[in-house]
Amino acid sequence: MEIRVVNLRDKFSQFTDPWNPRIVSQVNNTAIKLAKLKGEFVWHHHDHEDEMFLVVSGQLRMKVRDASGEREHRIGPGEFITIPHGVEHLPIADDEVQLMLIEPNTTLNTGNVTNERTRAELESI
Amino acid sequence: MEIRVVNLRDKFSQFTDPWNPRIVSQVNNTAIKLAKLKGEFVWHHHDHEDEMFLVVSGQLRMKVRDASGEREHRIGPGEFITIPHGVEHLPIADDEVQLMLIEPNTTLNTGNVTNERTRAELESI
Repeated sequence: MEIRVVNLRDKFSQFTDPWNPRIVSQVNNTAIKLAKLKGEFVWHHHDHEDEMFLVVSGQLRMKVRDASGEREHRIGPGEFITIPHGVEHLPIADDEVQLMLIEPNTTLNTGNVTNERTRAELESI
Repeated sequence: MEIRVVNLRDKFSQFTDPWNPRIVSQVNNTAIKLAKLKGEFVWHHHDHEDEMFLVVSGQLRMKVRDASGEREHRIGPGEFITIPHGVEHLPIADDEVQLMLIEPNTTLNTGNVTNERTRAELESI
């Protein structure tokens, strides 16, 4: 692994397509990804992987639902939320959100769902 | 694991002591820690754990040395560096640095070194 200083703003300037995470680092078996979000994603969960969403810019709405019902969390710049494995969640970005994702490198973006939003092969930048 | 929104500024306001990381989240076997750095740490490496340093505020200097010699990287706010396991490194903060650390939860802050800076038991906040 090359040792380099990564500037988040530089990396975000290298892509525009939403819901298509890029890998920017690896910490043992954990991947560090950057993504742009815009609009509503799809309800899904990850059977085995926890997922941390650190907002760099914009306002993220995260709906979660479990046995106790459905709730919404709002996450702004400098804030994060961690969704434990097994928990159904739905990210929504009314305007563009720039996000750092921290999750096992086995994590598929759409979790238990496969559809046109699924990205099985991620680019490293 | 409780689902909560974590505000980094709020968390940094809860402690002042440098070189004493706090745990703020867990992503499978990876710990997310916040730390304040001030001054020079100690040369060390981690036999098995990679370590990502994301600077939230301040300017971090990271010296690394390997077979090809010694170099220094400068990491500012919105930037990170990942130190692979096995690589000797020395973090230096001329003024206070606020840092997010992403590393396996087995990581000891002083790696292969044990001294008065070693923190074996970390507080969760």
